[in-house]
Amino acid sequence: MASTRENQKEKAEKFRALHSPGRILILPNAWDVPSARVFEDSGFPAVATSSAGLMVSLGYADGESIPKDLFLSAVGRIAGALSVPLSVDAVAGFGDTDHEIESTIKSIVEAGGIGINIEDYNHYSGTLLPVEKAAQKIKFIRKLGEKLDIPIVINGRTDAMSHGTGSADEKLKEAISRATAYRDAGSDCVYPMGLTEAASIEIFVKELDFPTNVMVRRGLPHIRELERLGVARVSFGPAASYATMGLLKRASREVIDEGTYDSLTNGAITFDELNKLASPRNQQ
Amino acid sequence: MASTRENQKEKAEKFRALHSPGRILILPNAWDVPSARVFEDSGFPAVATSSAGLMVSLGYADGESIPKDLFLSAVGRIAGALSVPLSVDAVAGFGDTDHEIESTIKSIVEAGGIGINIEDYNHYSGTLLPVEKAAQKIKFIRKLGEKLDIPIVINGRTDAMSHGTGSADEKLKEAISRATAYRDAGSDCVYPMGLTEAASIEIFVKELDFPTNVMVRRGLPHIRELERLGVARVSFGPAASYATMGLLKRASREVIDEGTYDSLTNGAITFDELNKLASPRNQQ
Repeated sequence: MASTRENQKEKAEKFRALHSPGRILILPNAWDVPSARVFEDSGFPAVATSSAGLMVSLGYADGESIPKDLFLSAVGRIAGALSVPLSVDAVAGFGDTDHEIESTIKSIVEAGGIGINIEDYNHYSGTLLPVEKAAQKIKFIRKLGEKLDIPIVINGRTDAMSHGTGSADEKLKEAISRATAYRDAGSDCVYPMGLTEAASIEIFVKELDFPTNVMVRRGLPHIRELERLGVARVSFGPAASYATMGLLKRASREVIDEGTYDSLTNGAITFDELNKLASPRNQQ
Repeated sequence: MASTRENQKEKAEKFRALHSPGRILILPNAWDVPSARVFEDSGFPAVATSSAGLMVSLGYADGESIPKDLFLSAVGRIAGALSVPLSVDAVAGFGDTDHEIESTIKSIVEAGGIGINIEDYNHYSGTLLPVEKAAQKIKFIRKLGEKLDIPIVINGRTDAMSHGTGSADEKLKEAISRATAYRDAGSDCVYPMGLTEAASIEIFVKELDFPTNVMVRRGLPHIRELERLGVARVSFGPAASYATMGLLKRASREVIDEGTYDSLTNGAITFDELNKLASPRNQQ
């Protein structure tokens, strides 16, 4: 286990070093073993989980309704199949007390994760957590990483732009103010969910002056433009899950309505390629 | 549980009735909850699992190396999310003895499956099972279904065309002779893996004069042509897994090489649509 811990420390440090404005980190979010392995094989230097993608694949809506053990076993399978660092979307930490948060984060690290997303949305009440409480979670996780001797890379996410109040401008201000608190609480990166427009991204990044994560959505600026705006990291979020389910819908319509299989066979991988995705790349 | 058993009997009978030459059953193979739910929503009257798709999604190559409990829990999640009948690829039954086969099939039925695929390939030795032994498995499962009072729909698969010996013609003859034995042992449908050419399909179906399953592959004749040839059922096999992994490869290349996200956003479903795929359709 000592070597595993050393290996995890190295991965955490490697992952943290990938967050530098000016050289954007493109971070794909996977939900199972083969999606994660395709991303590693494609050359991404790290992989993350998508909470929605992973949970729905197991039959639970995004949030904290999935049994934690089921969530953690999926994280463990994905981490075990990768040789690059894995960051795990821990939603709001599966709990409110220090004890619950500690249990969640320790389990994620034990499952092989070296980075986490932690958000300020309370899935039980359907409202934003008070900013002090959300910042406190981040401080606590930072200390926990020191205790575990794993320099966990913390992505402090605020849902103010979707769940805040007031006009779009007021929500952006709230996101900036919350992200500032999460930055000061010890995050390595901040993540204003829903920030997609170049003008708002520019304001946000200038105000924060800190590694910022944006998510792929239709209309998100080009990677080079994000880089110019100073964005440190762009993640897929659940986009790849949305895309694959869209493909299944099209393929279904094609075979039912047209009687052909082009959507299933064009650009598809082979049986041997699929099987190779089942095991770690470095064991092949 | 009585109502569940009645419900399963009805599903098995409904699924069996879908096997009638002249009106082809298009059977999509899923590997997790949302892939299965997209297929049900698309209007397919039944769904099957893909052994390769399901196993690789959990980090195991196709075959019988996956822990049986992990396999069964995935089957249970998929069955629980569907209201249409679910047929389960049981590979070679996860064992050789009657006791092992009984345990596997009972567990699949308890997990919610009402149909099974059983193949004549020995995953441990890498060779075809003796035909008598494979037919005996089918007879045993037929009797087991009666004992369980669930009229399990058995798809007897032969791998003679890929793992048999001799010329293509000899392999086709071997597939016909094996499938005849599986038909006579009590299968509801026979499945000559690798049968894709119209001429061979025609010979096979005429010889068997029995519901026959073919699998989607590049070059498989059009659905209407399969119907004309008397094919009773066409299944996706792992084709949808191959296609979705191909999409992830293209999307990865696009974002890395081009800096754009079209493969991720074009034709994609939404967050709300993804979340709805997490739970049974009849509970929404």
